[in-house]
Amino acid sequence: MNYRTALIVGAGPGLSASLARALAKSGLNIVLAARSIDKLAALAKEINAKSYACDASQASAVDRLFGELDAAASTPDVVIYNASYRTRGALIELNPSEVEKSIQVSAFAAFLVAQAAAKRMLPRKHGAILFTGASASIKGYAQSAPFAMGKFALRGLAQSMARELSPQGIHIAHFVIDGGIRSAHRIVSSDQPDSLLDPDAIAQSYIHVLDQPRNAWSWEIELRPWVEKF
Amino acid sequence: MNYRTALIVGAGPGLSASLARALAKSGLNIVLAARSIDKLAALAKEINAKSYACDASQASAVDRLFGELDAAASTPDVVIYNASYRTRGALIELNPSEVEKSIQVSAFAAFLVAQAAAKRMLPRKHGAILFTGASASIKGYAQSAPFAMGKFALRGLAQSMARELSPQGIHIAHFVIDGGIRSAHRIVSSDQPDSLLDPDAIAQSYIHVLDQPRNAWSWEIELRPWVEKF
Amino acid sequence: MNYRTALIVGAGPGLSASLARALAKSGLNIVLAARSIDKLAALAKEINAKSYACDASQASAVDRLFGELDAAASTPDVVIYNASYRTRGALIELNPSEVEKSIQVSAFAAFLVAQAAAKRMLPRKHGAILFTGASASIKGYAQSAPFAMGKFALRGLAQSMARELSPQGIHIAHFVIDGGIRSAHRIVSSDQPDSLLDPDAIAQSYIHVLDQPRNAWSWEIELRPWVEKF
Amino acid sequence: MNYRTALIVGAGPGLSASLARALAKSGLNIVLAARSIDKLAALAKEINAKSYACDASQASAVDRLFGELDAAASTPDVVIYNASYRTRGALIELNPSEVEKSIQVSAFAAFLVAQAAAKRMLPRKHGAILFTGASASIKGYAQSAPFAMGKFALRGLAQSMARELSPQGIHIAHFVIDGGIRSAHRIVSSDQPDSLLDPDAIAQSYIHVLDQPRNAWSWEIELRPWVEKF
Repeated sequence: MNYRTALIVGAGPGLSASLARALAKSGLNIVLAARSIDKLAALAKEINAKSYACDASQASAVDRLFGELDAAASTPDVVIYNASYRTRGALIELNPSEVEKSIQVSAFAAFLVAQAAAKRMLPRKHGAILFTGASASIKGYAQSAPFAMGKFALRGLAQSMARELSPQGIHIAHFVIDGGIRSAHRIVSSDQPDSLLDPDAIAQSYIHVLDQPRNAWSWEIELRPWVEKF
Repeated sequence: MNYRTALIVGAGPGLSASLARALAKSGLNIVLAARSIDKLAALAKEINAKSYACDASQASAVDRLFGELDAAASTPDVVIYNASYRTRGALIELNPSEVEKSIQVSAFAAFLVAQAAAKRMLPRKHGAILFTGASASIKGYAQSAPFAMGKFALRGLAQSMARELSPQGIHIAHFVIDGGIRSAHRIVSSDQPDSLLDPDAIAQSYIHVLDQPRNAWSWEIELRPWVEKF
Repeated sequence: MNYRTALIVGAGPGLSASLARALAKSGLNIVLAARSIDKLAALAKEINAKSYACDASQASAVDRLFGELDAAASTPDVVIYNASYRTRGALIELNPSEVEKSIQVSAFAAFLVAQAAAKRMLPRKHGAILFTGASASIKGYAQSAPFAMGKFALRGLAQSMARELSPQGIHIAHFVIDGGIRSAHRIVSSDQPDSLLDPDAIAQSYIHVLDQPRNAWSWEIELRPWVEKF
Repeated sequence: MNYRTALIVGAGPGLSASLARALAKSGLNIVLAARSIDKLAALAKEINAKSYACDASQASAVDRLFGELDAAASTPDVVIYNASYRTRGALIELNPSEVEKSIQVSAFAAFLVAQAAAKRMLPRKHGAILFTGASASIKGYAQSAPFAMGKFALRGLAQSMARELSPQGIHIAHFVIDGGIRSAHRIVSSDQPDSLLDPDAIAQSYIHVLDQPRNAWSWEIELRPWVEKF
């Protein structure tokens, strides 16, 4: 793979861990960033990754993170933005500050990370920035306005960046993850095999996108289990 | 028309004034709200409207506004959210606080207003909330990520609200205004007649949507000049 | 209204009758065309319309129809294409000739009619061509591939025509009718009032689109009952 | 790869040849079908493929093809529909029989092939059917109504099939190929490197989709060169 160092933001168990392992296996150096890195120690050790605590919704925190990465010769040429926050409920019962946080974490923080990354990628005309979306990125569900706002905004960012930065050599991709992801807390019932997305399988599609030559780039890819309604 | 009082947020010259006049002509009482109401005096007098200063991106300000409307027996059964803010430029040169403001004004403030409105409409199972979108609501353009983020988020909010509140009797509609709007500062050249949207014509489509019976509601309507590329 | 003569293709009971009455009331001369015109006699008499038998999926029949209209000084400046055909069922059990007919009637015949109409409208740079779509125009449902094929194709035609002909003065619009339409055979249960689209209400949205000035044209409009899932 | 025999319909030079080579390299037996197979001889020999002449827009021809494949123990568990036909020009100048052919070849023939394939795949609850779309699948361009009609219809078919057949174990995918494909007749200028899609690169994305486990299937994937406007 034609990349060297991947930064995964919103790293925690689940998809981020699968992505980190798959990218490490492909030979990349891995950097993990999350609000809290306590739970990342075992993974970081396993794949020899560095981990950084960072509240990506704060511009100053994102600046500091990238400054430290530059200083450590770990400036990423792959960035995967994987963080989100949501609050659910009837529209009239939502807590405004929770709604604000949903937009901040799911979209504004993604902008901050993507901007810092793009500043470093553009001079070399090389790099990739991948965003993790959801069903809510393209369909606003009842009782879930905050997630729709955050994920629609993230998709708008990704599409605008694709139009602007692809012709400058930066691969921008947006994944629509449509369905639940299997985890320790969420397992498949035996009468519905493969009804949850396997995070390792998702990671293989991210790897494929990073492998695409620039004459055939995907901007958007949907992934869902075979039995998922859509 | 089966409504009594319309609140227009983001009221200023242009589209909001046309909407206010058209709704007043249809017999509704008009309330105008904007960050600054200095420029609204003449219009307010002309159509006998009340006007309120309100920074709709602040939850407390929106609460105060609706409290005052309740006290004045002006609780709206029609709300039109018409405010937006944008900053343009190359992604790497954008000012993060301007980006944040774009999302706050274009989408989060819309949520605050819509939530306050819905709280009052739901007990009567009657009301309409209309959102003004743009080309950027469905297409993220290069050099314009903040507007895409704000307008995509607004559309996600509107779609989620439509799914949740329509079956409770609240008409939710989203307008995709695709093209420039004619104004005192922006006039059509004589060799391209009608190449800018006439705000009075746009207002007629809003009026039509408010006239729709609940068995045939529009959720989304596009409007553009005949010569506009899309 | 700035039009003189409307041709409605696929005229039968239901939506077409409502459109014919609404347009007649707006002062237009009405021409009805359908495969069989036996059932149109009462309506034609009521609104003083002419009716023509025409299998619109045959190029020669469409040529003949428009030739007769020209000869009768009834060349339409409004055309509404309202015909469709569908066959349902599991994909592997569909009858290929029924699938072919679905595409022919729902989309190819629309092209034939629209082409004949556009030939007459373009020299005067004036006219409107409206297409009736369905939920299936934007979402392909299981067990309903033929209808999806026909309605997606119709939407592709309408969008291509909008991009090509709008700047030449022809208003092209596509309606996404999302829900069942009330008819003599299909009535609303009393516990779900207004859960079917009223064809007269739909007709009012068509009338509104025909009333739009060219600086604020809609290309696509969705209509659904308040309680319809989408 | 968990498949055995791939049928490529619309096989000719360019994308089909790249797909055939990539699938052969992955260990699948390859069957090529096209209206004329004269030009396929060299490729067929190179990858040890069988080739069949078949006008896929004729139900009887498709029946015969699949009957022969069954008899030869070459029933495919992968089918790639890659054929299309288009005619371009101003709407009013299009030849109706060419428009009809565009729809027949681009969409109706795809239905015939997909139906015959699905009949054989469903009993084993295993198989994959991939459709090649274009920019015109999601955007109807001026002067190109027939291609929009054919490609929109194909996408409607693919989406309907995905909803119906995915939960029965058949992987349905639709590719939006957005840009010109490099060929002997169409080469990239040196000042715009990689501005045409490389058919081998496209083939790698098809291979990736065939490699996806059923818990993380893509339905739709876009591919375009880095410098392509969209």
